[in-house]
Amino acid sequence: MNPIDFLLKPKSIALIGASSSEEKLGGVILKNLLNFKGKVYPVNPNHPELMGLKAYPSFKDIPDAIDLVIVMRPAAEVPAILKEIGRNAKCVIISSSGFAEVGDIGIQNSVKKIGSEMGLRILGPNCMGVYNPYHRLDTFFLPYKRLRRPKRGNVAVVSQSGAILSCIMSSLKQSNTGISKAIGYGNAIDIDESDLYEYLASDNQTEVVISYIESIADGRRFINSAKNLSEKKPFILLKSGKGLSGQIAAFSHTGRLAGRYEVFNSIMRQFGIKEAVDFDELIDAAKAISFQGKFVNIMKKEKRAKRVLIITNGGGSGVLAADECMRKGLDVVNLPDDKRERLRRIFPHFYGINNPLDLTAQVKDMDYITAINDLKDDYDGFLLIALPNVAGITEGLTGLIKSIRSDINKPIVFHIPQNGVAKKIISALERIKIPVYASPERAVRALKALLD
Amino acid sequence: MNPIDFLLKPKSIALIGASSSEEKLGGVILKNLLNFKGKVYPVNPNHPELMGLKAYPSFKDIPDAIDLVIVMRPAAEVPAILKEIGRNAKCVIISSSGFAEVGDIGIQNSVKKIGSEMGLRILGPNCMGVYNPYHRLDTFFLPYKRLRRPKRGNVAVVSQSGAILSCIMSSLKQSNTGISKAIGYGNAIDIDESDLYEYLASDNQTEVVISYIESIADGRRFINSAKNLSEKKPFILLKSGKGLSGQIAAFSHTGRLAGRYEVFNSIMRQFGIKEAVDFDELIDAAKAISFQGKFVNIMKKEKRAKRVLIITNGGGSGVLAADECMRKGLDVVNLPDDKRERLRRIFPHFYGINNPLDLTAQVKDMDYITAINDLKDDYDGFLLIALPNVAGITEGLTGLIKSIRSDINKPIVFHIPQNGVAKKIISALERIKIPVYASPERAVRALKALLD
Repeated sequence: MNPIDFLLKPKSIALIGASSSEEKLGGVILKNLLNFKGKVYPVNPNHPELMGLKAYPSFKDIPDAIDLVIVMRPAAEVPAILKEIGRNAKCVIISSSGFAEVGDIGIQNSVKKIGSEMGLRILGPNCMGVYNPYHRLDTFFLPYKRLRRPKRGNVAVVSQSGAILSCIMSSLKQSNTGISKAIGYGNAIDIDESDLYEYLASDNQTEVVISYIESIADGRRFINSAKNLSEKKPFILLKSGKGLSGQIAAFSHTGRLAGRYEVFNSIMRQFGIKEAVDFDELIDAAKAISFQGKFVNIMKKEKRAKRVLIITNGGGSGVLAADECMRKGLDVVNLPDDKRERLRRIFPHFYGINNPLDLTAQVKDMDYITAINDLKDDYDGFLLIALPNVAGITEGLTGLIKSIRSDINKPIVFHIPQNGVAKKIISALERIKIPVYASPERAVRALKALLD
Repeated sequence: MNPIDFLLKPKSIALIGASSSEEKLGGVILKNLLNFKGKVYPVNPNHPELMGLKAYPSFKDIPDAIDLVIVMRPAAEVPAILKEIGRNAKCVIISSSGFAEVGDIGIQNSVKKIGSEMGLRILGPNCMGVYNPYHRLDTFFLPYKRLRRPKRGNVAVVSQSGAILSCIMSSLKQSNTGISKAIGYGNAIDIDESDLYEYLASDNQTEVVISYIESIADGRRFINSAKNLSEKKPFILLKSGKGLSGQIAAFSHTGRLAGRYEVFNSIMRQFGIKEAVDFDELIDAAKAISFQGKFVNIMKKEKRAKRVLIITNGGGSGVLAADECMRKGLDVVNLPDDKRERLRRIFPHFYGINNPLDLTAQVKDMDYITAINDLKDDYDGFLLIALPNVAGITEGLTGLIKSIRSDINKPIVFHIPQNGVAKKIISALERIKIPVYASPERAVRALKALLD
């Protein structure tokens, strides 16, 4: 059994530092563990019972084999706690902070040494822990009311920073995008990004991996695992600490040096590992690939799959999208002459039969279908813009798109302004796995992630 | 009286093509005109009354002087309509389409010639018209339920494209940003962007102008008016049609040639006219300047006002912000030594006393205030990051920021993830004119707009 399985799919969990108060981090974690489908053993010397579960004065008193221990106690106590656990657990999450990230390298090294001697696999310290909705496992020290969790899905998230992990989870939730696993690995004295990439490369529930990293301990291992993962499934990295000030900040945050970004970036390119430019691009690409990742592999086989058809009911929005396509190296090639002639006969004379194809404010839902059906073999991806403030854009659009979806084995993304008016249309489209973006340029960047 | 006053502040309006049905564009416009505080004269040969107003069989039958005529009739009828109006109105909005944008240059030239002979000032054709909330004037052919209008404010919007104008209005509404005037000028046979820039440069209700353009008829006039406007108040341009495909699309959309973008861009730089990179940047900058534009002028006097202090309760988010500062040429300079020492004594030992200043998950609202108060003279702008999923971030934050606002005569922007959890905090901050952004990078770009 892979040791990471004990981290992500344990059968039994002990929580050292459990509390009955949700005001305390150990109470929040215990609350979140109440949904876990395996066994949970809270450890607290002062209470016989916590949140309805029998509590144990110390780890040694637990009468069961433990797969995963979560430690939420001050840094100074952690070495002794690890010695007490000894060889009687498989894996430990050290959730507490107070280690290298605040300059205390000594205690971090001591924890690392003890873990290694005992054969314990350790996640952290100073980390958010893990969330596996397929296993109803949630070790985060954030209550649900402050961090709503995304539903089950196919995106795995690997983040050094707990703060960014929580932001990613919020944003994925808002993007109607489900996740398979989320791991915040913090100071990474043992289990690091490379271990997690290797694990996720063969995790069946994971179809796309996104990862936020600030620093890397072992460059060679990182490159190998990231490259291997990229070859198996879509993988997108957001690397921070790009400038000097960012590097100093990243160092003080996790105690690992960030390294020169230019060097990092050129290595990533060399090995075909994809980087997002910023936070929004990471989320937007994750959503697109989560919804339509099956086309990424089809696209990989096409040598030059970058012809995009833009269909819009607002001229200006089409032009902005065409501009962004150009910046991103996508081809907004015009329609083949015969198709142009045919569509000119079918559509009203004032429609703009070019690329972007401008259906104007007089648009009807059905026009998008007519155009895609006619041009499906001439393009590699379709960007549909539906400004919902005209009468011809209705909730019927989703049903029409659904009816042709199986015929069109290519990426389709939408731009619809998120102004409240189109809320129902957006949710309906996303339910059938058509991703919708709030600006023309974000939609183009998401489509680029699918065609790349 | 400036002729544009008749367009934006008319006392009387005639609507040719008025209808009683909101299914028709002429009905939507009439409905929107019902709130107008001046006089409205619907023209329709078939109905004596429309939406409770007396209707007139023809323009000539109106027994009053007319400042503004709105024409919503098929293109082919427009020349005759203009002849009928003759010299009996000051200004005409031709809302209908079917002119150069669909290739009919002939009818457009004929309309232009008649307007010129009659001394009529014309907005359009193929345009959205005007919205002036201070005058309760709304000539848009989009119903409220499909396009919610922003409240009164200080941002003027000038857009060639009606579609983009509607997207801008939606986004400003969502950004809690109010507008002073909105004008969609379409094919611009007479009144164009230059006329509007000149007008807005001395419009008292307008403190910032944003403009979307695809093409320019008279380059020299454009540069003069844009440069003059930029010198008087903050002005941000979004120019589309940057690539070849964008240029073709822009041409077919408004019938004016877009010109080479590289040339355009270098001229803009030369004259100090600011361009947004994409739609989101336009909106984000407009909000920042709308809220805190008074600092832009203060900043202008400072030669090198680009020192940014980042205060965060999530290390990773701070690093992403620092990266973006570097890319945008903002200085994330570290704290002066004496301030570092002092804050180190005041704050818990595990806080990261650098720039970004990391208040960690143990943050209290008051910590932001302590830090800003201590460092207000050492930086030119403040980027505050408040991840709301920890207990120490509360609704009390706004009151605290408000209490120090008048002491700090510098830009303050926030990044708070928009995940529903922090909705109340975000609205409260924006009510006191502190703009909040959904990602660290967007917050940096908005701050850059204030410091530039």
